[in-house]
Amino acid sequence: MSANWGHHIELSLFGESHGKGIGIVIGNLPAGLKLDMDMIKAEMKRRAPGQNKMSTPRKEADEVEIMSGVVDGITTGAPLCAMIANTSQHSKDYSYLKEKMRPGHSDYPAYVKYHGFNDVRGGGHFSGRLTAPIVFAGAIAKQILKEKGIHIGAHILSIKDVKDSRFPHDISDDFKRYQPTIDEEAFIKMQEVIEEARMHQNSVGGKIECAITGVKAGLGNPFFDSVEAHLSPLLFSIPAVKSVSFGDLDDITSLYGSEANDSYYYEEEQVKTRTNHNGGITGGITNGMPVIFTVGVKPTPSISLTQDTINVKTKTNDTVNVVGRHDPCIVPRVLVVVEAMAAIGLLDMMEDL
Amino acid sequence: MSANWGHHIELSLFGESHGKGIGIVIGNLPAGLKLDMDMIKAEMKRRAPGQNKMSTPRKEADEVEIMSGVVDGITTGAPLCAMIANTSQHSKDYSYLKEKMRPGHSDYPAYVKYHGFNDVRGGGHFSGRLTAPIVFAGAIAKQILKEKGIHIGAHILSIKDVKDSRFPHDISDDFKRYQPTIDEEAFIKMQEVIEEARMHQNSVGGKIECAITGVKAGLGNPFFDSVEAHLSPLLFSIPAVKSVSFGDLDDITSLYGSEANDSYYYEEEQVKTRTNHNGGITGGITNGMPVIFTVGVKPTPSISLTQDTINVKTKTNDTVNVVGRHDPCIVPRVLVVVEAMAAIGLLDMMEDL
Amino acid sequence: MSANWGHHIELSLFGESHGKGIGIVIGNLPAGLKLDMDMIKAEMKRRAPGQNKMSTPRKEADEVEIMSGVVDGITTGAPLCAMIANTSQHSKDYSYLKEKMRPGHSDYPAYVKYHGFNDVRGGGHFSGRLTAPIVFAGAIAKQILKEKGIHIGAHILSIKDVKDSRFPHDISDDFKRYQPTIDEEAFIKMQEVIEEARMHQNSVGGKIECAITGVKAGLGNPFFDSVEAHLSPLLFSIPAVKSVSFGDLDDITSLYGSEANDSYYYEEEQVKTRTNHNGGITGGITNGMPVIFTVGVKPTPSISLTQDTINVKTKTNDTVNVVGRHDPCIVPRVLVVVEAMAAIGLLDMMEDL
Amino acid sequence: MSANWGHHIELSLFGESHGKGIGIVIGNLPAGLKLDMDMIKAEMKRRAPGQNKMSTPRKEADEVEIMSGVVDGITTGAPLCAMIANTSQHSKDYSYLKEKMRPGHSDYPAYVKYHGFNDVRGGGHFSGRLTAPIVFAGAIAKQILKEKGIHIGAHILSIKDVKDSRFPHDISDDFKRYQPTIDEEAFIKMQEVIEEARMHQNSVGGKIECAITGVKAGLGNPFFDSVEAHLSPLLFSIPAVKSVSFGDLDDITSLYGSEANDSYYYEEEQVKTRTNHNGGITGGITNGMPVIFTVGVKPTPSISLTQDTINVKTKTNDTVNVVGRHDPCIVPRVLVVVEAMAAIGLLDMMEDL
Repeated sequence: MSANWGHHIELSLFGESHGKGIGIVIGNLPAGLKLDMDMIKAEMKRRAPGQNKMSTPRKEADEVEIMSGVVDGITTGAPLCAMIANTSQHSKDYSYLKEKMRPGHSDYPAYVKYHGFNDVRGGGHFSGRLTAPIVFAGAIAKQILKEKGIHIGAHILSIKDVKDSRFPHDISDDFKRYQPTIDEEAFIKMQEVIEEARMHQNSVGGKIECAITGVKAGLGNPFFDSVEAHLSPLLFSIPAVKSVSFGDLDDITSLYGSEANDSYYYEEEQVKTRTNHNGGITGGITNGMPVIFTVGVKPTPSISLTQDTINVKTKTNDTVNVVGRHDPCIVPRVLVVVEAMAAIGLLDMMEDL
Repeated sequence: MSANWGHHIELSLFGESHGKGIGIVIGNLPAGLKLDMDMIKAEMKRRAPGQNKMSTPRKEADEVEIMSGVVDGITTGAPLCAMIANTSQHSKDYSYLKEKMRPGHSDYPAYVKYHGFNDVRGGGHFSGRLTAPIVFAGAIAKQILKEKGIHIGAHILSIKDVKDSRFPHDISDDFKRYQPTIDEEAFIKMQEVIEEARMHQNSVGGKIECAITGVKAGLGNPFFDSVEAHLSPLLFSIPAVKSVSFGDLDDITSLYGSEANDSYYYEEEQVKTRTNHNGGITGGITNGMPVIFTVGVKPTPSISLTQDTINVKTKTNDTVNVVGRHDPCIVPRVLVVVEAMAAIGLLDMMEDL
Repeated sequence: MSANWGHHIELSLFGESHGKGIGIVIGNLPAGLKLDMDMIKAEMKRRAPGQNKMSTPRKEADEVEIMSGVVDGITTGAPLCAMIANTSQHSKDYSYLKEKMRPGHSDYPAYVKYHGFNDVRGGGHFSGRLTAPIVFAGAIAKQILKEKGIHIGAHILSIKDVKDSRFPHDISDDFKRYQPTIDEEAFIKMQEVIEEARMHQNSVGGKIECAITGVKAGLGNPFFDSVEAHLSPLLFSIPAVKSVSFGDLDDITSLYGSEANDSYYYEEEQVKTRTNHNGGITGGITNGMPVIFTVGVKPTPSISLTQDTINVKTKTNDTVNVVGRHDPCIVPRVLVVVEAMAAIGLLDMMEDL
Repeated sequence: MSANWGHHIELSLFGESHGKGIGIVIGNLPAGLKLDMDMIKAEMKRRAPGQNKMSTPRKEADEVEIMSGVVDGITTGAPLCAMIANTSQHSKDYSYLKEKMRPGHSDYPAYVKYHGFNDVRGGGHFSGRLTAPIVFAGAIAKQILKEKGIHIGAHILSIKDVKDSRFPHDISDDFKRYQPTIDEEAFIKMQEVIEEARMHQNSVGGKIECAITGVKAGLGNPFFDSVEAHLSPLLFSIPAVKSVSFGDLDDITSLYGSEANDSYYYEEEQVKTRTNHNGGITGGITNGMPVIFTVGVKPTPSISLTQDTINVKTKTNDTVNVVGRHDPCIVPRVLVVVEAMAAIGLLDMMEDL
């Protein structure tokens, strides 16, 4: 398995859900950055489980220990390694996962790819828990971007069929007002849908809309390194993300060209567009409007309901009961992961770190 | 601007719409491959304009000249450079494009990024014409994949609000039967919608569904090199593509986990899933079912209608008339480009070239 | 600072000499490899200091803790993170290193590059101590290569002006017979030279010759990924290495073409060359003969003698006394680092992991 | 075969000695650069053969045609493709090269690697002729560096056993005074050695010393991206280069640490070193002194003398006569190639293009 992502900013992600720990190495950070540890902790907490009924009651301390690259709270320019020790793993029996492939999970393809040697406890390296170090890296990226006047925020756009409003055209930098949803009513209904799924030992998914404000025109490149091409693999690296749309969701495919073309105008010498169907990106390059994109998150594959599957040991059809403490919906916890990936991807496109 | 994409298979794309020519260098091709030039020509023709009312009447010969890497029609293992001379460019006046930024195009962000030095004639390097060499590269990739039992095909899933059926669960290798649409009726209505847009000097977009059959379980990696992460930047490199969904479009976000989890079963010792909401990919790795994905294509930004915009020379609001021969809808021509990118991306993930 | 190296095999190196610890993340290892921990420990010990008068009396436990990627001693295919805690650091005063730039060290360029934020204690991330995790990674690479019949070994070719013999043409797989030198006499003289330098608070350098046996013809590529181009950056990543020669040291530049051209012949259907001036590589590709190369190691820059230098705080000329326990010669300890880098680089060029 | 090299600046090299043409795609060039075509032509001429007795009488026009990325002589920011048509190839019989493997050449390893499909005519893609596009790219890189006050120049340090002086400590920017040798006498002797080799149908090699002046402190990174690690693969990509030394050749291995440590001092607020044994690089990072390195070039493998070799068709020992017009020594022509690679590599390390 590949550990690395990186062009300008480098990431190397490691660890398994039930191993000794998980962590990340971040390369090419600028030297002299005073880390805002309170902000980092707050971001980590947004992802942490066990905070309400929507997520698993499992508690994870997620105490980050910085192993390198920081002296007296300030980055040195050397690779920063952050570790999170695994502490809360139940010592339950995971051996059935060696035989019974959980539907919707990595189990079967990983079994084939790694010849049965992959760590199956809690999903091993495929665990959503690996997004914790990504949130850590994203928090640092956000801090650097903030100093450049760039802000990133995401809200829940939908849970199952319950929809929130989309970001307004005159989106504000203060994203807290949009979180977790823009419409309060929508969030109440969403919680009901999630609770109902939980009561039925089932799960639901949804969509997340994310915005990046303060981005200047001129970031990105044609073709293989367009902004869309640069951000999408990071977004698709988030477990359970199955779709990425820039701008108007898929709605742009239903417009006429005369509608979809966001017309330019000057407002006090600043170039703006009257609409933003293209999500701040045309020709693969930012045009100075907010970068807007949406990701679709599938329902949590771990559900307590008995499911049909195969047993690769007996080579027969079988059923599986995925015991444990599951999130009936991970969308609320994924918000900050999406923001983190966007921050990392955007920072990576900037040459003047 | 970056020219290169590549991990295993390498691509270096160059050229401008109205320069001397366009082309591509393909690195790391296997030696000893006898190129199927008829197949390559047939693929190039699928993308070529001027074939019907849906596309621009502009004719482009698109004669590919292979400059290197092939002797006696067989690859040598050395980098293959393919060139297409530009012949059909009207010598019209493009100077207005230096001032008036066409909405929906790369004009303004490129003006900022390249300080006004970018070639604006016909969109320069941003032109959709650059997809011709990609189709060439894709045809070679398809040929190699075919020898491994892998086939790739796409159909028009929608044009504006007119929808085609989705691929059946028991999809066939013979993709011609699904092209350009699965429902004949749908295609007739689509043509009407396109013709109506053309009559109004407007344009429309749509969606394309693509399938890859014959892929074994085990391709791809967790996180940064998941199949989704690997294919998406290539798909987002296609001009006008604004969304990419794997599996069930965004519909998977509306399902319960018990529905979205494609349950496994053995059919004569072969592992299959009863549904394929995950598009053949779970945990970022292929599971042996057909890989299915959809891309959303925005309406062609070039329309003859007068549009509001800015003039960067006078720094005032202005209007622009984009003269020329425009495609009222590029979706039918993009089918083969999507297939090409999928072929290149998939081939690149295979280690046993 | 970049943490990552990698194409097929990925490395991400982190840590500082006097931080919490040092470590490495290794990506893309094959699953199912049973780690030979005894062999790994033996390799680590070859690099460890404090074993004789030639190296610093400083003891480093160098206990490797595997944080991820291994279950029950067998690789899972997930990124393997190995950590070594720092335990033996004296709590001495390093603050003078913030001002006085040690000649021959990274101090001054790092001061400029990182604006004075780099960790100066013991050299920080630039410390030769960072080669310990590389030896760990190299030991794993060696183990994989051994299973393919490939062996790697290095000997001391010279210390200052004392020279060892070069590898014989019919080099054996059993490298221990050549280590640390081929001629026993030479090693005795080398020790004298090192001891003399140590007595004078000075240091000496030397050359290392390394061989890789069992490599088949056909590895490597023309130009940017020739075997030489692939291995050299790894070798130049070893602190203090200033030169890399493939084949006959620089002597090949003094030969006639008729001598330098290693002529081929069949020996029982196997292709061999009568000489090996090209070090097993022609046209950038292995030809089936042992790969031979030499690296030049400069004298340890840390010496106790008072040296002239600058003080970047006072901006005046100054002198510096580098206190501490120094290696009068690191060449004997670098042998295994060179082998490790060669193993990693060679493994990375193989596609059939 | 891989075509690409690149991090910041991207190169994609293609073509064969006797194919339609050779060329290069250069990505990520800055927009707005007015190409100095006279300087480019002058550089190309330095590499061109047929200029004196030391090189092959073969004439190559080496007319560069820029296919893309330049409008009105100014770079647009889009990938620049430069082509050189092949015109001077004799239509002689190369079929013997399919069977008889020329010693010292890529023939045999390429035969194994590409299963006999590689283009053997004139060495195919392995031909030294492929360095012509590299000189072109290097000339552009030099032009950009010159605007930043950085100059690059190389001289012949030795031909066989005839040695030139090394660069003086107070090296000048005006490199012409050092070329082709610093000592005029040495060049006369070198020519005699080359002529003598030519008369005996043999060839000779030598060493090239190259300097980069005007480089500020702070370029490069620890370990995998040290200046040495960054430049060396480019230098080893030059056909026939077998060794690369930074600083004092291998002589640094014979010094005491107290000698090898270049001591710093302030000269009118500028930091300098009294000696430059480390070639302007310590800790992998430039220290502000001139970057100095040496490459060793083996004797031209193409010689007219009958040589022993194998016949891969008959699988027997055989002899080969390499007919054609050979360079008795390529060192004088390689000077500009070394400079080009240094320019490309250095430019690639700069972030403020």
